[in-house]
Amino acid sequence: MRLPPDARLTPFVETDHDRIVALLFDWLRIPSISAQPDHAPDVRRSAEFTADLLRDAGLEHVEILETPGAPSVYGDWLHAGSEAPTALVYGHHDVQPVDPLELWRDPPFDPEIRDGECRARGAVDDKGQVLYEVEAIRGLLRADGALPVNVKFLIEGEEEVGSPHFEALLRREQDRLACDLVVVSDTGMLAADLPSTCVAMRGLVGFDIRVRTATTDLHSGLFGGAVPNSARVVAELAAALHDDEGRVAVPGFYDAVRALTPPEEASLTAVPFDEAAWMAQAGVTATAGEAGRTVLERVGSRPTAEIVGITGGYGGEGIKTIVPATADLKVALRLVPDQDPDDIAERFESWVRQRVPAGARIEIAREGGVAPAHTPVDHPAVGALCRVLERIWGRAPLLTREGGSGPEEALGRILGGPVLFLGVGLPGDHVHAPNERMVMAQFWRGLVDAGELWHELAAVVTGRR
Amino acid sequence: MRLPPDARLTPFVETDHDRIVALLFDWLRIPSISAQPDHAPDVRRSAEFTADLLRDAGLEHVEILETPGAPSVYGDWLHAGSEAPTALVYGHHDVQPVDPLELWRDPPFDPEIRDGECRARGAVDDKGQVLYEVEAIRGLLRADGALPVNVKFLIEGEEEVGSPHFEALLRREQDRLACDLVVVSDTGMLAADLPSTCVAMRGLVGFDIRVRTATTDLHSGLFGGAVPNSARVVAELAAALHDDEGRVAVPGFYDAVRALTPPEEASLTAVPFDEAAWMAQAGVTATAGEAGRTVLERVGSRPTAEIVGITGGYGGEGIKTIVPATADLKVALRLVPDQDPDDIAERFESWVRQRVPAGARIEIAREGGVAPAHTPVDHPAVGALCRVLERIWGRAPLLTREGGSGPEEALGRILGGPVLFLGVGLPGDHVHAPNERMVMAQFWRGLVDAGELWHELAAVVTGRR
Repeated sequence: MRLPPDARLTPFVETDHDRIVALLFDWLRIPSISAQPDHAPDVRRSAEFTADLLRDAGLEHVEILETPGAPSVYGDWLHAGSEAPTALVYGHHDVQPVDPLELWRDPPFDPEIRDGECRARGAVDDKGQVLYEVEAIRGLLRADGALPVNVKFLIEGEEEVGSPHFEALLRREQDRLACDLVVVSDTGMLAADLPSTCVAMRGLVGFDIRVRTATTDLHSGLFGGAVPNSARVVAELAAALHDDEGRVAVPGFYDAVRALTPPEEASLTAVPFDEAAWMAQAGVTATAGEAGRTVLERVGSRPTAEIVGITGGYGGEGIKTIVPATADLKVALRLVPDQDPDDIAERFESWVRQRVPAGARIEIAREGGVAPAHTPVDHPAVGALCRVLERIWGRAPLLTREGGSGPEEALGRILGGPVLFLGVGLPGDHVHAPNERMVMAQFWRGLVDAGELWHELAAVVTGRR
Repeated sequence: MRLPPDARLTPFVETDHDRIVALLFDWLRIPSISAQPDHAPDVRRSAEFTADLLRDAGLEHVEILETPGAPSVYGDWLHAGSEAPTALVYGHHDVQPVDPLELWRDPPFDPEIRDGECRARGAVDDKGQVLYEVEAIRGLLRADGALPVNVKFLIEGEEEVGSPHFEALLRREQDRLACDLVVVSDTGMLAADLPSTCVAMRGLVGFDIRVRTATTDLHSGLFGGAVPNSARVVAELAAALHDDEGRVAVPGFYDAVRALTPPEEASLTAVPFDEAAWMAQAGVTATAGEAGRTVLERVGSRPTAEIVGITGGYGGEGIKTIVPATADLKVALRLVPDQDPDDIAERFESWVRQRVPAGARIEIAREGGVAPAHTPVDHPAVGALCRVLERIWGRAPLLTREGGSGPEEALGRILGGPVLFLGVGLPGDHVHAPNERMVMAQFWRGLVDAGELWHELAAVVTGRR
């Protein structure tokens, strides 16, 4: 790993390397899976770990912020003065589920570094990225006794389930969280030698559709062919979700989609894209999706509907001769400006209900609901971030759109100010999949990035408080 | 329970009631699930239990017949003389899987009798039905020291997985199994007050279709909308399996279907059928299936395709934002005369392969393969069975077609002679589903039926040996 020798935190990384790795491992050992209720105590434990981490790094007013779901964690350092800007760092301490467990080469909650990669659930999404932000604060405070900006940390505990209580939390804590800009550390870059920063994220709304066609599974010989089959009902719904052109078939789904401006089009075109390499990284042998759109458009600037789970009947070995009584379909919709999650959710649910055949009862649970986010690219803070990235990575960053979704839109909308994305994830990090990893060289550069960013921002952004 | 006082085995049922129930419970406690490899030792234990049962009842030459899969059990009593007919009794000692376990009111392998019902996996399918056949032999031997016919028992261990090695076993053991007729005890009747016997069974061939679209699950935000989705591939296959008229869409699927003869049509029409009661029993609020066909046709005389399992992506609580890399579709096809399982399987597999989209790899495993069976209704043995049923149940039995499938076709084809169906199951027995039961009043009448049948058959069928 070669860090720029003149960067503020390069010496800190050298002296504190082993301590930071040990801290990362301790955190990654906590299976803080927010989607699974039996892991609620682990999410709680992870929140307590986060609070200790912030406190120990020198942040003040550290507090676990309760919600009706999993808790967020707050901490701040506010001694830079009212002329200095105030930044809020956002990340999350919960992680995705780990199934199918048998596909992990190493246990997901027993981190190790091999071949320069830290392999564990949460390594890059998002504990590792929160940790380098916190350690940058510790390093700057140790070197200078002060920070050039006022900083607040808000580390969420329900990001992986669509942030159901996050917006209410932001509103409730609006005074405490007031800031001039938000720095999100939960994204990636195009490649290790191709720095980039995200200027737009898609929104997300998910659905868990449960179908029941009988009170119990029925013998396929005695009843098959004459009763509704719940597995067939969900399969037909899933198959009807897209038309022959790969477009989402829900009426009005595309109505509110804002066209790209010419500068955005230009930026999208400027991103170098090696489709074969991308396919190899994804582990696929073909691309798919909306006709007439490039892969980069499909994953960045276009809304999508994805079947994230389908379950009905017998899933064991061999076959079981039944007509399944219940089946389940999980769908995730990714949204772009200016699609409204509530409006789209209503359209989707009404489309589903109209397609339910006789004899099937249906329940739809809406999961999360995050509006798409957009960063104004001409804001001086974006310029500051780009200068830092160019200095540390040796190349001017490209501006990208990220296909993923988080609560960034609500952060920008409720707290005001631009949302910057400082993220060092790579496309091959197996985010949300078995064998998630953090490339440690990226991690250390992220830490150094963070240290530089506060100084760069102090020079160009003025505090409003 | 009122058994006819003049039936041969009524006194035996009275004296041996408790012993027989205890024996039934002991057998039902063995979780002999043939579909699940980790239950192979239990299937073995069940075979040993069966062998002890046959031996103890007075049968001779008892032997566990090995196959490349689970073992069958053989035993005989051959002292009725060469003028007397030889009958082979077929049943099976393996059972269906029990998931979803949480839907069982009582543990599936801890039998109890409540409200006159023995509740356990295998109670009616098929341990209970084998047991009354064996106990009838014991009762007749105890009373008379002899049987009026020669009897052979063949109790299979792989019926619930489509009898993959049964036909080879029949061919290998053809001399030992030689008989004039087969009595199958693995079916049901229309209602407790509506005796019936089955004269045709549908065949079965199953498929386990595994689809892979990527090496690992992918983040739906980073890759969704631009890569193939395995769950969508199986959903589209499942949805395409039937046309808008509910007909199976596989080309040529119906080509070989033999039309019903006028007497068969008449018998089908004569069966009283209360659709509302049938729906209540099935626990459904609508019927479904092939347009222009009645429910009885759909479950008896028509071939069907049923999705018995569909699995892809996240199946836990909430949602997980992934593009599933692998998905699985299980389909069971029920066949009628003269559809050939191999021919239909080839048509099905070729139809599936033609529908696989770019970027998806597919594996199809064929599960079982049982041809449809048909009993000649004018055979004197069928007349004998009908007389017995009328005597014990107080009403002439109706002739039915059973939608289920077993190895009956191979029994008739390889061993020769007609296949009779003596079965006391009821439509509400939850066969292959949670809360399987045997109505004990049916069980005891079945035992008495079996005792009468051997005498009635001895009078009308001549041995050929």
